[in-house]
Amino acid sequence: MGKMIDSNRHLQIGSLIFEELDQIDLTGPFEVLSRIPNSTYKVYGIGTKPIKDTRGLILTPDDSLENAPTLDVFHIPGGPGQEALMENSTVISFIQKQCEHAEMVFSVCTGALLLGAAGLLRGKKATTHWGAFDLLPLFGAEPVNQRVVIDGKFVFAAGVTSGIDGALVVASMLRGEPAAQLIQLYMEYAPEPPFNSGTPTTAPPAVLEKARADIKNLFERRQLTARKIADKLGITCRT
Amino acid sequence: MGKMIDSNRHLQIGSLIFEELDQIDLTGPFEVLSRIPNSTYKVYGIGTKPIKDTRGLILTPDDSLENAPTLDVFHIPGGPGQEALMENSTVISFIQKQCEHAEMVFSVCTGALLLGAAGLLRGKKATTHWGAFDLLPLFGAEPVNQRVVIDGKFVFAAGVTSGIDGALVVASMLRGEPAAQLIQLYMEYAPEPPFNSGTPTTAPPAVLEKARADIKNLFERRQLTARKIADKLGITCRT
Repeated sequence: MGKMIDSNRHLQIGSLIFEELDQIDLTGPFEVLSRIPNSTYKVYGIGTKPIKDTRGLILTPDDSLENAPTLDVFHIPGGPGQEALMENSTVISFIQKQCEHAEMVFSVCTGALLLGAAGLLRGKKATTHWGAFDLLPLFGAEPVNQRVVIDGKFVFAAGVTSGIDGALVVASMLRGEPAAQLIQLYMEYAPEPPFNSGTPTTAPPAVLEKARADIKNLFERRQLTARKIADKLGITCRT
Repeated sequence: MGKMIDSNRHLQIGSLIFEELDQIDLTGPFEVLSRIPNSTYKVYGIGTKPIKDTRGLILTPDDSLENAPTLDVFHIPGGPGQEALMENSTVISFIQKQCEHAEMVFSVCTGALLLGAAGLLRGKKATTHWGAFDLLPLFGAEPVNQRVVIDGKFVFAAGVTSGIDGALVVASMLRGEPAAQLIQLYMEYAPEPPFNSGTPTTAPPAVLEKARADIKNLFERRQLTARKIADKLGITCRT
């Protein structure tokens, strides 16, 4: 985490938002990214109308994709709504264009699958939500079971709340550890989960079984899409 | 955490939002509260217009305070904007009315100070953001330096991200541990902060010094207001 971008250079930081994203994939990182020194941070949508997250939180973009500048740091959240964007050419070309120029690309949760649909996961170490982890090879990625995975200029956070950890890593890569530590202190981020049920390996078996049943349909849809895109991208999958 | 509310009873859960709140005081708990089984969860504002959080995130209430039902669970976030509401009679009487009837009241960060202004902290064990912790006795509360403090039907989370831990505690009190564990697994909440700078006691001294300097003005304003309210409430303060 030693590489820092020139602290005198003003950074353009942007997040993508869309209908049915998981709001904390955005709002966890927002808390960190919006406090990075010497930067402008905005949230970009497909248009500028308010959208609803998967549980109903109403969020409004600061501006639309077509008005976004070339971003230095590009953040892509996930959530169930990612599935509908996998073959949306406006969104996919926006992602491709921004990722080409960005100094740093940061995906949270199934935001990684959008990078996959953009053909950007080929040969990369990556991670995503545990419920979509097995789909990564379909996009040519090498899945790494860590909360935050870094491969070159790409930073991948695993599911949902891992975006907070990932964003602090991004902040330190951009502006150094003391800057990231100051943000962490302000956020009083010294987590104490009351249970140890945050991953499939630590959750009680009955809880895991219920969670898997709840996401079964979404997983199957995502798998079909992933296979279709793998074919289109010419990726040979063994899974 | 043994007391559970009848799982057959549908719960009305609501969060208060306002200009310049700290968005993750809302959005951290949102991720949990919006997934509590057999409940309706809404976000209530002073009116229904979009508001901006302290760093600019645009949030829109589902409905206004006057349209809120009697809530079973009432959540009060904090952030710099709390200060402007301390003598807002509409908001303070809304808080008093909801707290009288609620089965559970849950404050995050400086949301606790709004409970103080409503005269509801007298004699209670409570916590808040580390930067406002010393103000609690001015409202007659006994400050407890824990991430989550429970006193009767009141649950207090400390600063900002502690709302996630607090909300999981609330979920388990309402619907039992397996329900809370399922939400935790879905959220992949197995945090791994990259640094150990989340509290004043663990942060590097230079980082703490900078943070204290950054919040100095806000702290002084909050202290003046707290003293004024203590006088009004007839609380004798020794701090």
